[in-house]
Amino acid sequence: MPPALTTGTTNNATTLVLFFLLLLALFPSAFHLLWTLPTRFFYPSHHQPKSIRSLESDLRTTIMWFQKQFTLPPRPRGSYLITDTVLKELPEIKSYKVGLLNLFVQHTSCALSLNENWDEDVRADMSDALDRIVPEAGPNGEALYRHDAEGPDDLPAHVKSALIGASVTIPIKDGKLATGTWQGIWYLEFRTMKHQRKIVATIQGEKA
Amino acid sequence: MPPALTTGTTNNATTLVLFFLLLLALFPSAFHLLWTLPTRFFYPSHHQPKSIRSLESDLRTTIMWFQKQFTLPPRPRGSYLITDTVLKELPEIKSYKVGLLNLFVQHTSCALSLNENWDEDVRADMSDALDRIVPEAGPNGEALYRHDAEGPDDLPAHVKSALIGASVTIPIKDGKLATGTWQGIWYLEFRTMKHQRKIVATIQGEKA
Amino acid sequence: MPPALTTGTTNNATTLVLFFLLLLALFPSAFHLLWTLPTRFFYPSHHQPKSIRSLESDLRTTIMWFQKQFTLPPRPRGSYLITDTVLKELPEIKSYKVGLLNLFVQHTSCALSLNENWDEDVRADMSDALDRIVPEAGPNGEALYRHDAEGPDDLPAHVKSALIGASVTIPIKDGKLATGTWQGIWYLEFRTMKHQRKIVATIQGEKA
Repeated sequence: MPPALTTGTTNNATTLVLFFLLLLALFPSAFHLLWTLPTRFFYPSHHQPKSIRSLESDLRTTIMWFQKQFTLPPRPRGSYLITDTVLKELPEIKSYKVGLLNLFVQHTSCALSLNENWDEDVRADMSDALDRIVPEAGPNGEALYRHDAEGPDDLPAHVKSALIGASVTIPIKDGKLATGTWQGIWYLEFRTMKHQRKIVATIQGEKA
Repeated sequence: MPPALTTGTTNNATTLVLFFLLLLALFPSAFHLLWTLPTRFFYPSHHQPKSIRSLESDLRTTIMWFQKQFTLPPRPRGSYLITDTVLKELPEIKSYKVGLLNLFVQHTSCALSLNENWDEDVRADMSDALDRIVPEAGPNGEALYRHDAEGPDDLPAHVKSALIGASVTIPIKDGKLATGTWQGIWYLEFRTMKHQRKIVATIQGEKA
Repeated sequence: MPPALTTGTTNNATTLVLFFLLLLALFPSAFHLLWTLPTRFFYPSHHQPKSIRSLESDLRTTIMWFQKQFTLPPRPRGSYLITDTVLKELPEIKSYKVGLLNLFVQHTSCALSLNENWDEDVRADMSDALDRIVPEAGPNGEALYRHDAEGPDDLPAHVKSALIGASVTIPIKDGKLATGTWQGIWYLEFRTMKHQRKIVATIQGEKA
C-alpha cells in the first residue's frame, strides 16, 4: 500500500509538471521567451531571432517602391532648374539608403535633363543652341516639316524632345540624390506658349 | 488497494490525454488551427498570422523581376511606332501594380525613344530632321567621316544612336504603362537597308 | 499490490517517455529533423520547408542593391571605350541572375553612351560630328554663347552633355551585361583639357 500510495502521489506531482510543460510546449513563443531570457542580458536585441510578423514588415519596408504624379508650374519656351521642386514633391527620397529615382515627363514637346545648376546664362544658351540644332525653318525661310498644323514650334519641339529625352534616372545614396556638385535637374520647355507638364516620379530602393 | 487501483485508472486516462496533447504539440500548425478556429469567425482571414511558406511565396511575387528578349519586324530607315508590339510581347506588364519597364536595343545604329503617337508625318519629319543634324556628307558633298567602310549611312547612324539613345525607361502604374495621352514608344532605324533588331525588356516592380 | 506495483512501474516508464517527448516538443527544429529524416532520401533539399532565418537571408540576397562610386582615368576631349574599366570596377555584376546596371556620371560637361566597340575611327568621328552639331563659334567666327567665362569649349560641352546624357541603364542577364555583340560603354569627354570624372554605379536585381 505505501508503495502504491507513493506511486500515486508521485504520479500526481509528475502529472502536474507534465501538464505545465505541455501547456508551455503549445506556446512556443512563451517557451522561447523563458528559454532565451538569460541571453538577453548578454546579447543586443538585434541578435534575437525574429518572428515571421516582424520579418515580414522588415522586408516590406526594406525593399520599397514609391510612385507619385505631380505637375510642374506652367512655363513658356526655356530651360528651368527644377531640383528644389522635385525635392519638395518627394520628401520620400530621404528614407532611402540606396536607390534610384526615375523622373518621367508624360509629354512629347518638352524634356528632362541633368545640367549645370548655377549660371542662368547656361540655361538661356541651351535653349538657343537647341534652336540652332533644330530650326523652325530652313536658312532661307523655307518650310522644313510636313507636320505644321500645331504651329512652327511644334515639330522642332518633338525633335528636341527625342534628342534630350523624356526621363532621367538619378541614383539615391543615404537619403540624398547622388548628383555631382554642379548637377541640377532641368525641365526644358520647347513650346513657345506656357504648358502645364505632368511628371511621374518612381523611387525604388532599400530603406535605411 | 482501491486507492491504488483508482490511481492506476487515473494514470491511464491521464497518460492517454497527455499522449494526445503531446502529439498535438509536435504539430504546431494543427494546434494553431484548433486554437484559432473560433477567432476565424470574427476576424477576416488576412489578419491570420502567415506561415513561412505563404510569406515566402507572397514576397517572391510581390517584388518581381521579369526579363525577355524579342525581335522587332525588320525595317529600313525610318521612325516606327512600336507601342502595340511591345504590349503584345509583354503581357506581364498587366500584373505589376507599380514598376518600371526598361527597353534596351542591342544595336548601335538604331534607337528607342518616346514621342508623338498619332500623326505619321511626325515620324517622317523626325527622320528627315535627324538627317539634317547628322548629314552623310558636307554641304559641298565632301566626306565627313573616317569610318566609311560600311557605307555612307553607317557613321551617321552611330551618331544618331548616341543622340537619341539605346534605351527607354517607362513607369508602370496599375498594370499599364504610365505614358501620357500622346506618348508612344518609337523605334528609329538609321540604316538605309532593312535590319532585324533585338530588344531586351526588363520589368521590375511590385505585383498587385 | 501487484496491480499497484505494475501501474507504478508502467507509470515510471511512461513518465520517462513523456518527458523525452516533451523535451523534443520544446525544440521543434530537432523534432522536425527527426520527423523529416526519411523524406530527405526521397525529395531534393529545396523542397524542405525553410526556417525563418534561412528564409530571411535567402530573400535578402535574392533582391539586392549594390552601389559604388569610382573615378575614370583623366582624359582630354575625345570618345573612350570604358567597358573593361566598368567590368573591372564591378565584379558584383557576375552574381546577378537578372538585373539592371545604372551608370551615372556626376558632371555636366561629359557624357555616357552605348556605341560601337570595335573601330577607334568611330570614336574620333563621333567627337568631330558633335563638334559640328554644337560648334564653339558661328560660321563666321561670331560668338554664340552668353556663358563663356570658363572657355569656348565649356558651353558646347554642356549642350553635348544634354544631347548624349549623363547616364546609361544596361540590362544584366546571367551575370553578364546583356549588350549586343558590337555594343560597348562609352565615356565622352567634351572639355579640351583632361578632367577626372566620377561615376556612381547602381546595380539592382535578383541574385543567382
